[in-house]
Amino acid sequence: MSCIREAFHIPDGVIYLDGNSLGPLPHVVRDRISQTINAHWGEMLIRGWNDADWINLPERVGAKIAQLIGAPQESVVACDSTSVNVHKCVSAALAMRPDRNVVLSDTGNFPTDLYVAEGLLRQLNKGPELLLADPESVLAAIDDTVALVMLTQVDYRTGRLHDMAAITAAAHHHGALVMWDLAHSAGALPVDLSGCRADFAVGCGYKYLNGGPGAPAFIFVRPDHAEHLDPALSGWLGHAAPFDFDLGYAPAPGVGRMRVGTPPILSMAALDAALDLWDDIDIHQVRARSIALCDQFIDQVETIAPDGALRLASPRDGSQRGSQISFHCEEGYAVMQALIARGVIGDFRAPDIIRFGIAPLYTTEQDIKEAAETLGDVLCNRLWDTQEYKTRAAVT
Amino acid sequence: MSCIREAFHIPDGVIYLDGNSLGPLPHVVRDRISQTINAHWGEMLIRGWNDADWINLPERVGAKIAQLIGAPQESVVACDSTSVNVHKCVSAALAMRPDRNVVLSDTGNFPTDLYVAEGLLRQLNKGPELLLADPESVLAAIDDTVALVMLTQVDYRTGRLHDMAAITAAAHHHGALVMWDLAHSAGALPVDLSGCRADFAVGCGYKYLNGGPGAPAFIFVRPDHAEHLDPALSGWLGHAAPFDFDLGYAPAPGVGRMRVGTPPILSMAALDAALDLWDDIDIHQVRARSIALCDQFIDQVETIAPDGALRLASPRDGSQRGSQISFHCEEGYAVMQALIARGVIGDFRAPDIIRFGIAPLYTTEQDIKEAAETLGDVLCNRLWDTQEYKTRAAVT
Repeated sequence: MSCIREAFHIPDGVIYLDGNSLGPLPHVVRDRISQTINAHWGEMLIRGWNDADWINLPERVGAKIAQLIGAPQESVVACDSTSVNVHKCVSAALAMRPDRNVVLSDTGNFPTDLYVAEGLLRQLNKGPELLLADPESVLAAIDDTVALVMLTQVDYRTGRLHDMAAITAAAHHHGALVMWDLAHSAGALPVDLSGCRADFAVGCGYKYLNGGPGAPAFIFVRPDHAEHLDPALSGWLGHAAPFDFDLGYAPAPGVGRMRVGTPPILSMAALDAALDLWDDIDIHQVRARSIALCDQFIDQVETIAPDGALRLASPRDGSQRGSQISFHCEEGYAVMQALIARGVIGDFRAPDIIRFGIAPLYTTEQDIKEAAETLGDVLCNRLWDTQEYKTRAAVT
Repeated sequence: MSCIREAFHIPDGVIYLDGNSLGPLPHVVRDRISQTINAHWGEMLIRGWNDADWINLPERVGAKIAQLIGAPQESVVACDSTSVNVHKCVSAALAMRPDRNVVLSDTGNFPTDLYVAEGLLRQLNKGPELLLADPESVLAAIDDTVALVMLTQVDYRTGRLHDMAAITAAAHHHGALVMWDLAHSAGALPVDLSGCRADFAVGCGYKYLNGGPGAPAFIFVRPDHAEHLDPALSGWLGHAAPFDFDLGYAPAPGVGRMRVGTPPILSMAALDAALDLWDDIDIHQVRARSIALCDQFIDQVETIAPDGALRLASPRDGSQRGSQISFHCEEGYAVMQALIARGVIGDFRAPDIIRFGIAPLYTTEQDIKEAAETLGDVLCNRLWDTQEYKTRAAVT
């Protein structure tokens, strides 16, 4: 099974192709949040930490995510934001490779990962430098100076997919560690962290996992590493015995030590409920249908769009991309605003990318057809060419 | 006005004296969360970042908190957990005082603050050491070697209150910076960060601010410092222009640079709604009534309790404590379980503290009287002395 559209609230008149930015509302979230607020917080009060098992919710959510990314259940925990989790991984990796002086990433990485690495390296003062390769040159850039290869598997702009197995193997061959950002992978395509022997991974709860705006992120640490790490962000809920209130830190077993502070239970509960939708989903079927829907979109858009208006930014070969289709488009911002005004919601990524996320759990062939037709209409009739659509909002 | 009990859901049969661990549910939260889920996430989808102004919610929440802690509105932002925010402050302070080698705290600090400092110093490898004074000896321990004095104003166990003005002034006299953890201060008593010229502060959204389990925390940076900091946790939502997606980091103006990743909107919206309850509240009236209720509780408990069963752990002088009363009690864990079973909810803090939070927004004189009588009954009749009450839960 790969389409459960009835499980989501899709507003009337909307074709939603932005689930790679924020997944839509799963109906189950409403009841779960009502329960969490009224029956748990309201009635149990502080007892909810035990009686509603809030204290273990990050591990329970992590175990559900682990199943979607090919990781052992106890190797993933849901916590903090993706950015904060990147900091934890880079810091841990540098401590494991103290004699190496390069963190290698690429220019296709999502900027926050680069910002976080940059901030950490500045903080460490005379630590390694951050080296950015072109996405195509990453493999060639890995050598024995590299402490950590830090990449996002699916390029947020183009959807270009890195070869996780090959890059991880090459990094290990050179004694480097690897951190994968799975923001656009988890719930979008099969991931096999265990099979690749990846060292670290992080990812996002609010895109293809549909956990709601700003849903908690997740972090994976390979189990044989996790037992040896001293977390730089060593907060009380990563302590072996937080309620002993010892003055000194002792890490919890395994990936649990990557927890830091008290988790935001309302947001975490929404993500937990949303993850139950995956119980009967075969991610390989999702992947097959994602490729078919993406191919259909490319075909139909390229048939309809005027010559020169768009240039495919995504790989044409479905096996080489994630679950999105992007086009370069000179007036991309205004074009996307015109689309949104007509009920087709994708997004714009500077400088000139219009981006359409395909989520087979709720995206249908009819959505794709209508979205392509609307895009053709906007372009052929220059419907984007008004000041209203050119005025930028705070969030693009 | 200082009592708005009708604004909260207090379950039938419960006397709630644990709002210093988790504040009760404000009724306004229900509608706000329903709106955020259905009208915003459900209908607006990704457009909620602009149309529901999610993107600025951390600043809007921060401005509300600022009013409760004597800080300029634009100097506070709500984000992450208290622990993560401690990391940001300690890291920033060390960068501002590179030639000093001591972070000074005390043994009354909440352990997570100490763990976080410990983890950061370990990460920095040959950075300063963490020095722990007795709470009474902090002033005397401040000298010219200290980079940062890092204290929680109200001791989580005893309620003992530090003299924020005197300690901050002494630290500045010696060229040190000061970070105040206001976890048990914000919403409990008047705080004057500006008047003290405090450098940094952090605090918690789920105690006296009633934002719900794991509600986002807050961070304050003195405005003249904020413009010069390079955050170690430098994520995209602390960037000057996150939606330009530049490869390099440039900090946002002011305290906004202390934001890191995407905020958990459901949890943040609950906190935002809960903060509106303070609109007509005079925190000085809250303080006066808090002291009166705490004095009443001490008097009535000491009148009723058997000789030797309890020893007051809190300062007897109301001006020297926060908004809680604690007693040393040999079988404290079991005693607290017996109380909870009888509807009087406080909590236990290892090794032997029973703790009662007083929140004048919903705690009444009748609550205090009944709680004292129930505690007397439990102690006089050894109602705690059963195995059921001695078996420890995961969260105490």
